[in-house]
Amino acid sequence: MITPFDDTYFMRKALDEAKRAFDLDEVPVGAVIVANNQIIAKGHNLTEQLNDVTAHAEMQSITSAAEYLGGKYLKKCTLYVTLEPCVMCAGALNWSQISKVVYGAKDERRGALRYDNILHPTTEIVGGILADECSELMKVFFKSKR
Amino acid sequence: MITPFDDTYFMRKALDEAKRAFDLDEVPVGAVIVANNQIIAKGHNLTEQLNDVTAHAEMQSITSAAEYLGGKYLKKCTLYVTLEPCVMCAGALNWSQISKVVYGAKDERRGALRYDNILHPTTEIVGGILADECSELMKVFFKSKR
Repeated sequence: MITPFDDTYFMRKALDEAKRAFDLDEVPVGAVIVANNQIIAKGHNLTEQLNDVTAHAEMQSITSAAEYLGGKYLKKCTLYVTLEPCVMCAGALNWSQISKVVYGAKDERRGALRYDNILHPTTEIVGGILADECSELMKVFFKSKR
Repeated sequence: MITPFDDTYFMRKALDEAKRAFDLDEVPVGAVIVANNQIIAKGHNLTEQLNDVTAHAEMQSITSAAEYLGGKYLKKCTLYVTLEPCVMCAGALNWSQISKVVYGAKDERRGALRYDNILHPTTEIVGGILADECSELMKVFFKSKR
């Protein structure tokens, strides 16, 4: 069976979200949450617009997916996010018991995966999907800030 | 100079918040954020009411304090929270660059302070204020669930 719904497909949707953040002059990170091959939540970084350090793409997506599902656990869901989650977002993903986390670029400075057991023990982790495109968008953003 | 505004005073206010959570059948954790001896934000755990794993007392307080201050950094603020922060909340507190975190009871299972450098390097940490009262409230709550 041919399916267009692979990790690259959904990461491209997360990248679209990251570009929305970029256009708002936010650090360009985007995320989508998928259940049964369907996007049930989208989010992009809004820390500047909302004046709120907690307004990361992942946090907004988690809240939105739980709202959609009518339950706080995301056990059969996958998060796609353009950047390796930070400690805050990894902690939130742990609480959500999400099935799978797929990230694009590695975050050498603030990525949480350097810590052992920071995600839920049942959460599968995949990294490096569209990593170059995800990190290029970040580089262009930070270059424009210098 | 005698001042009533010591760590115990503000922890008691956080405990009042925890009791509000208890009354709502939420895990009883409460928090307040203080700037210049003034409470600028309060929060209590609302994960069940809001169906949202991110709705911890600390997260709500951080968002609320930033809203009050009109800026996302909490550099001259102190958070009082009845339970040692989890990884998610510690990560959020790190991003906020809060000056000081004071907690009541230690959280042996989910406390984040077992990890090195999880709070911001400039954040002072004080633990054990009204620890017995804070943990007793948790014990009564979980006993009622059994």
